[in-house]
Amino acid sequence: MLPQETLEEARALLALLESRGLRLATAESCTGGLIAAALTAIAGSSAVVTHGFVTYSNEAKRDVLDVPWGVLEGYGAVSDSVARRMAEGALARSGADVAVSCTGIAGPGGATPGKPVGLVHLGVAMRGETRAIRRVFPGDRAAVRAATVAEGFALVRAIAG
Amino acid sequence: MLPQETLEEARALLALLESRGLRLATAESCTGGLIAAALTAIAGSSAVVTHGFVTYSNEAKRDVLDVPWGVLEGYGAVSDSVARRMAEGALARSGADVAVSCTGIAGPGGATPGKPVGLVHLGVAMRGETRAIRRVFPGDRAAVRAATVAEGFALVRAIAG
Repeated sequence: MLPQETLEEARALLALLESRGLRLATAESCTGGLIAAALTAIAGSSAVVTHGFVTYSNEAKRDVLDVPWGVLEGYGAVSDSVARRMAEGALARSGADVAVSCTGIAGPGGATPGKPVGLVHLGVAMRGETRAIRRVFPGDRAAVRAATVAEGFALVRAIAG
Repeated sequence: MLPQETLEEARALLALLESRGLRLATAESCTGGLIAAALTAIAGSSAVVTHGFVTYSNEAKRDVLDVPWGVLEGYGAVSDSVARRMAEGALARSGADVAVSCTGIAGPGGATPGKPVGLVHLGVAMRGETRAIRRVFPGDRAAVRAATVAEGFALVRAIAG
């Protein structure tokens, strides 16, 4: 489900985090566990990856990651605000040092006016700082999900490096 | 990370669950999100998959899935009892109709006396019933994880079908 290159990036990211003594949690919507699955494909990842949350539904985002209902309703599940709250919620719930999140429209359905297929908001939280980015990835469902995993790794690398 | 056949099994399982009106949650240790990732690779899976929990550490199993510390310490994380508690915890935390769990030693490290690489305990919980099975899968880390995903699908099919 992922190119070999992404698994090599997972390996490098784990080595970076381990060298910094940082533990990672994930909070995934559109990738549905693929970020965590890619990281844990690497032997020894248990030293870094402690928790992963797959919150596909709005209720899961609220109940598991404490994303306020008003934020979900006000901005929509696929939004900068929800990505930020998901990362912050995963950090708080897990006690990890850094958390990465994503919420998007992997397709082929689900597009709405202003929110095309391929739109993904990603977030990362660490030591009181939260960053988020917006991307529109080309391609089919598998391509959007794979690109989101790679972008998530890049976000963690940027904040942790 | 998974053979095409497993993705076809994911598609069939989602169709079965949707036809029964059942929502699914996952609780994964050794597969690290791969069960959820395989299911959510299929478009429309959001009608069935609500929550996924990746609980790699013992603390995550306790804090997120309410597996009692005494069970983790007494039987070890890779045990029938922990697999059962993980499935029951995921069901309770998610409000889904059925939950599947796994905990195992994907390798190459991690073997202990009586617990070889490839040992996996899987659980499934639905409507007050919990089932668990023990397997020892051959092959490397990727093979053990892929076999665990397929076996998890079979468990859900058996209890839901």
